[in-house]
Amino acid sequence: MVVIMKISNMLGQRYKETPAECRITSHIFMIRGGYMKRVGEGIYSLLPPGLRIIKKIENIIREEMNRIDGQEVLLPVAMPATLWKESGRYYSIGSELLRFKDRGDVDMVLGMTHEEAVVHLARHTAESYMNYPFMVYQIQTKFRDEPRSRGGLIRVREFTMKDAYSFHLTQEDLEEYYQKCYHAYERIFARAGVPEVIAVKSDSGMMGGKVAHEFMLITDIGEDRLVVCDSCDFRSNMEVAECITENSSAEDADLECVHTPGFKTIDEICNFLSVTPEQTCKAVIYLKKKSYEPVIVFIRGDLEVNETKVQNYLREEIIEDDGTTDTGIVYGFAGPMELNLKKGTVLFDKSLKGTHNLVCGANKVDYHYKGFTPEREMGEIEFVDFAKAYNGSICPCCGKKTISITRGIEVGNIFQLGTKYTETMDMQYIDKNGALQYPIMGCYGIGVGRLAASVCEARHDENGPIWPISIAPWQVHICAIRADKEEVAQVSDALYNDLMSKGVEVLYDDRKVSAGVMFADADLMGIPVRVVVSPKTVSRGVVEIAFRDKSYKADAAIADAPEMIKNIIADELKKLEPQL
Amino acid sequence: MVVIMKISNMLGQRYKETPAECRITSHIFMIRGGYMKRVGEGIYSLLPPGLRIIKKIENIIREEMNRIDGQEVLLPVAMPATLWKESGRYYSIGSELLRFKDRGDVDMVLGMTHEEAVVHLARHTAESYMNYPFMVYQIQTKFRDEPRSRGGLIRVREFTMKDAYSFHLTQEDLEEYYQKCYHAYERIFARAGVPEVIAVKSDSGMMGGKVAHEFMLITDIGEDRLVVCDSCDFRSNMEVAECITENSSAEDADLECVHTPGFKTIDEICNFLSVTPEQTCKAVIYLKKKSYEPVIVFIRGDLEVNETKVQNYLREEIIEDDGTTDTGIVYGFAGPMELNLKKGTVLFDKSLKGTHNLVCGANKVDYHYKGFTPEREMGEIEFVDFAKAYNGSICPCCGKKTISITRGIEVGNIFQLGTKYTETMDMQYIDKNGALQYPIMGCYGIGVGRLAASVCEARHDENGPIWPISIAPWQVHICAIRADKEEVAQVSDALYNDLMSKGVEVLYDDRKVSAGVMFADADLMGIPVRVVVSPKTVSRGVVEIAFRDKSYKADAAIADAPEMIKNIIADELKKLEPQL
Repeated sequence: MVVIMKISNMLGQRYKETPAECRITSHIFMIRGGYMKRVGEGIYSLLPPGLRIIKKIENIIREEMNRIDGQEVLLPVAMPATLWKESGRYYSIGSELLRFKDRGDVDMVLGMTHEEAVVHLARHTAESYMNYPFMVYQIQTKFRDEPRSRGGLIRVREFTMKDAYSFHLTQEDLEEYYQKCYHAYERIFARAGVPEVIAVKSDSGMMGGKVAHEFMLITDIGEDRLVVCDSCDFRSNMEVAECITENSSAEDADLECVHTPGFKTIDEICNFLSVTPEQTCKAVIYLKKKSYEPVIVFIRGDLEVNETKVQNYLREEIIEDDGTTDTGIVYGFAGPMELNLKKGTVLFDKSLKGTHNLVCGANKVDYHYKGFTPEREMGEIEFVDFAKAYNGSICPCCGKKTISITRGIEVGNIFQLGTKYTETMDMQYIDKNGALQYPIMGCYGIGVGRLAASVCEARHDENGPIWPISIAPWQVHICAIRADKEEVAQVSDALYNDLMSKGVEVLYDDRKVSAGVMFADADLMGIPVRVVVSPKTVSRGVVEIAFRDKSYKADAAIADAPEMIKNIIADELKKLEPQL
Repeated sequence: MVVIMKISNMLGQRYKETPAECRITSHIFMIRGGYMKRVGEGIYSLLPPGLRIIKKIENIIREEMNRIDGQEVLLPVAMPATLWKESGRYYSIGSELLRFKDRGDVDMVLGMTHEEAVVHLARHTAESYMNYPFMVYQIQTKFRDEPRSRGGLIRVREFTMKDAYSFHLTQEDLEEYYQKCYHAYERIFARAGVPEVIAVKSDSGMMGGKVAHEFMLITDIGEDRLVVCDSCDFRSNMEVAECITENSSAEDADLECVHTPGFKTIDEICNFLSVTPEQTCKAVIYLKKKSYEPVIVFIRGDLEVNETKVQNYLREEIIEDDGTTDTGIVYGFAGPMELNLKKGTVLFDKSLKGTHNLVCGANKVDYHYKGFTPEREMGEIEFVDFAKAYNGSICPCCGKKTISITRGIEVGNIFQLGTKYTETMDMQYIDKNGALQYPIMGCYGIGVGRLAASVCEARHDENGPIWPISIAPWQVHICAIRADKEEVAQVSDALYNDLMSKGVEVLYDDRKVSAGVMFADADLMGIPVRVVVSPKTVSRGVVEIAFRDKSYKADAAIADAPEMIKNIIADELKKLEPQL
């Protein structure tokens, strides 16, 4: 991918000002630097620097997928809806799946993920156990009709994604391959210059299946909340992280119904009765999305309900109680005892297990109980983990109170899918004994554009991105200051031709602009190795080589510069090679 | 792109039988060989061999576009319709443009071509004359809702296309760049193994603009009719080819109205009046699509009307006269004299110029005129070229009667667009004098999948494709016959590893199947260099090297084989390098 480019010929402008619609760093720099241009809500065109980054990331991914025996294929962007009706997702996925009709009035969808398409490709193609295992992948445009696109390439509607699908005869084989893919992902992120990306356990969501990991770049602008242990390796998405709490060893007390006129919130009650939120049992109320039946979760007053856990337990979606349904609940005073529900589900979080002497609602307006001891009052209760982990909660892995909550961007994910798609879409193979079996699937995604933006979030200063050399749009940026002077033009041109012949990727700024404009633009282009040629350097017989991240600066004799730059690039690339 | 693949691990099956839905060679072989699988009407998934061909063609195109200073960008697949409303094409293009609404009820389209998107990208980005000229291109998925997809990858709805767009300050500069691109296209087709692709003048159709060429592969299964001179370089699409005829030098005769009871067709009249079709003047009747007003074209009786020429002359669409409109025409007996049209347009083809003594309709049921001499009877007539060229018509270039009509597949096209899009979408630059100007555009397309299929049409035998080495899915195919024998496995494995280390792309067939099955599959994979390792060759200390096209076959000592194969590949690749 050696292309030499003069900045004066390159399509795209660079801007000093931050565009009004940009909130986050990568979005700001990628617009200001002329990497991309907005076309519509969550839809961008990529200019040469932006596309070059994307292509380099794609190549890293391709190499790593080939290393684990992936076979590259290409599935359709627009598909007949029949495939999605077979799997059932045509009905179960909301309006982020873009549905339309073609000229023949046939239902179609735009692919947002390709489990259906890959099963269509592989069924009747891999009919013998001898064809297994195999993995196919593609790098392709996808469309997801996001309700809220945001942050430039962080959350878009049209995007380039690498999606891979593996097929196995046994769960053990899937698990083994899953580990290989996990490892390949670590290599990909390391090679792309963000080795700090971590894998966290995650919810498998709409994909079906059980075991899943997300690869997260920790950053404040992340949309996902992560649970990380500061003492051990435990890492999890908030959605699935177990919450372990300690209870203060309160003594039992007698149950007593007390008048709490108008005090509805935990804070008001705690204040009025002089207890801490930990000494209360609160009710959090939802509705089942389909039936509108209430779901009440009782939980210790200081904790929050993790709705994903509740949904996974119920195996159906819940929504906030909008108050439009007659549930029979006495809002503000709901408690476990004498709860007079017409219909609905009552759940207890395990934070209440072994607690004593709590305050809870009495299911009468303006009344609460004191002295509530769940297991004494309610008999046998099923306690389930429904709470969100919090800063300082107990690590499920090492047992220390060193959980911290942080934020991350999901740059990749891997799922053990099981047989959800092969069963619904009737993909079978004949096993050794002649019996028909459903293959077991895994799937593995990386958002290419989001990864590019995430690297920018992780690698920048106040003036622009600092691209890792493996994915930088070019490796070397020549700034020819006063290129109108014969001696500068001569040295710069010679350097540019020499580097080209050595296979180095160069962006060459030969414009007649001030050094200030030139350096500001170079900062926005974020190219790791900068070479400055100026009347001053030329008079000393040198050029100046400096790293964009300011970690290195040295003069090089004009004659030695090309070889030196080539070696520097090789060294920098080597630093990004994963040690695994 | 070195990937070593064992055929036993590769996803995809090969079939002996021709699938029922396949009519043309490339479609048959690409389905039978496991290159692709049909997903829906005009929509295919590509398996590894198919995708590898596509990627290789893409790389050839990319290199040639970069050679003429192209900058690769990426425009959206799904776009807001606003852009297409600006250019007017949202309204002027039929249902092949797929329109839909997103979740926010916004009108969207799937890109079938990207003039609008590229003008959106470039406007406000190239605002100074100093930014010009430039060319940007992309290689991307497009969707065109074809009414009749057919022939596998020849005419699909979803396809990969290279589309390029150049922007210029002057028409002269566009024309100069257009020539460069024409030349780049010749190089691309030569490198892809089909140097016989010819450029023909073409109609610019819905793209706007004037000068246009199509690059055509001559083949009987082509959808386009081409006009080619056997004596000189003249080549044109039928749609725009001038038709030049000679008239027999008949003497004038007196005009006479004759009774021709029930004789309506040219054949019937000629028979009844003992004249040849050349001695008649026939009326061909159309309706304007918008107004339903009739359009009558008078033309020599032996010629056919070229509807594209009529439409270009009228600057509006015409349709066949369906007989539902009261035009006042006496069908079967329409002629130029005493034609009593209520409304409508009368046109004369230039084949009638200088003719004498013709038979034509008399605009009365059952009557024709004899002795019709157009210029004598009608006074001054505007004769225009509306006829289709035909086998043996006169070449507009060399003047010989050596025109032949043939068929071709369009594998690429280039257009001089002019300012149609920059004007409608208000893209301007500031010229040297500070005045605002519209840049002048060219556009340049290649259908990647269609090119792959076209190569297969041009390069195959009865057993399968014969891929040119530049685009073959792999360069070498090792057939290990009786791989269960230790000595065969050893030699084959060593060869495979050795070739891999030399950067050769190998497909390795180590299956335990008969030589017959193996060779039939190898024929379907069409890989140009085949190496056979068998107990017999090994016992003689050799392997057999044979070309898929049967032009070469030789034994090579086992130790020498890898180096020899590497050299053969280099030689074969060199043969495809264009000499231009």
